[in-house]
Amino acid sequence: MTYCCGLLVREGLVMIADTRTNAGVDNISTFRKLHIFEKPNDRVVMIATAGNLSVSQNVISHVTAGLDNPDTGERETIATVSSMFAAAQLVGRAVRKVRETLGASTEQVNYDVTMLLGGQLAGRNMRLFMVYSAGNFIEATEDTPYLQIGEHKYGKPVLDRAVNFESEIYDSLKLGLVSMDSTMRSNLGVGLPIDIALLRRDAPDLEINHRIDHVDPYFHDLRDRWSVALRQAHLNIPRPPYGKRR
Amino acid sequence: MTYCCGLLVREGLVMIADTRTNAGVDNISTFRKLHIFEKPNDRVVMIATAGNLSVSQNVISHVTAGLDNPDTGERETIATVSSMFAAAQLVGRAVRKVRETLGASTEQVNYDVTMLLGGQLAGRNMRLFMVYSAGNFIEATEDTPYLQIGEHKYGKPVLDRAVNFESEIYDSLKLGLVSMDSTMRSNLGVGLPIDIALLRRDAPDLEINHRIDHVDPYFHDLRDRWSVALRQAHLNIPRPPYGKRR
Repeated sequence: MTYCCGLLVREGLVMIADTRTNAGVDNISTFRKLHIFEKPNDRVVMIATAGNLSVSQNVISHVTAGLDNPDTGERETIATVSSMFAAAQLVGRAVRKVRETLGASTEQVNYDVTMLLGGQLAGRNMRLFMVYSAGNFIEATEDTPYLQIGEHKYGKPVLDRAVNFESEIYDSLKLGLVSMDSTMRSNLGVGLPIDIALLRRDAPDLEINHRIDHVDPYFHDLRDRWSVALRQAHLNIPRPPYGKRR
Repeated sequence: MTYCCGLLVREGLVMIADTRTNAGVDNISTFRKLHIFEKPNDRVVMIATAGNLSVSQNVISHVTAGLDNPDTGERETIATVSSMFAAAQLVGRAVRKVRETLGASTEQVNYDVTMLLGGQLAGRNMRLFMVYSAGNFIEATEDTPYLQIGEHKYGKPVLDRAVNFESEIYDSLKLGLVSMDSTMRSNLGVGLPIDIALLRRDAPDLEINHRIDHVDPYFHDLRDRWSVALRQAHLNIPRPPYGKRR
């Protein structure tokens, strides 16, 4: 299993991904799911992946090595595309190509993948997309400034209630980490370490590119503080006034 | 869709169920899913249902009208069983009976159901069970004092973090309502009105038996207070100290 989320707020972009992969609970491994292409003063493009690992790894290889653009005939890579929109199209083509290749298999395997693609090219708009298994994609907007892939349900309520486009970027990172923690508590298939990245809008390079491991004191403190806050929060709600229906 | 939860704490039992059923988002109805059998000074037994409505309604009919107990040869109903354990066995038999009857159908229909069964008979232990589609069941314990059926993921993190066996019973009700609200916000298939019941341990009858509707002022206030509390909670967490990996 996997949980990744991306938050695109006014100040910039936060990407968070866990690193656990599993084929059954008795076959667990650690793989990086947050892939960062950074060329200071030119572009920062990040891809977070969920779903079949053989498909997502192949997609990353393709977008790194390059695929021909059917419209221009030119070879494109994530390092050369001229816009985030073109990057999303490139990732979509790579997903379709890999799945078409695998489609010939006679095995009953689930080759679904979903990906988050976020970043900014110098002088262009910062954007955040979700690319589906069919290669189509949607984009985060000011109305819905976050996107999730993988095991998204446990971590959604806190984002729904507390994140909006005007949220301060470090608050957004905190809430993304709370969302990740809620998911890890409820699904053993999602686990530490967590990769996080923070890119300010129009900045030349990443402000945060960090892996949170099992002994990270800040993350432990955040978990504790959030649990205490939740336990306290309901104490400030008055007692339910209900009785028996007559 | 459906969301129901039962919380069995030291002081007693809380049961919460939504009332929305749907066959697609364009075919939504309201059906009571929390069924209460109350005989003051003798027993309060409650059943909350999720899954195929035709199966769950049939099960309720069977346990009300009665089924023969294969061990004793006697006809049992939810109003005559001698223990909560016998009630769970009765519900399990009813589930198996209904699904066996339907098993002959050639249609591709999902006849799965899950049910929460909670309550107390005078002089006996208060108990809370979850009955599965196969008719087997598990029981809530002091380690895990709550059980959920239906769309359980959105509402689980708050219960995981804030409810334990020593939680005050009205706090448990509040947290159950927050869990329900989190679920309703994220899944349109779960909706108001909500039926709630509260039974104190060793009490002669229910303390609360109430339906929360769309204009309920307490529930609106609870939703608002919880959202404000969540938005405030992360402000008390220090700023993440992370930077770029060198």
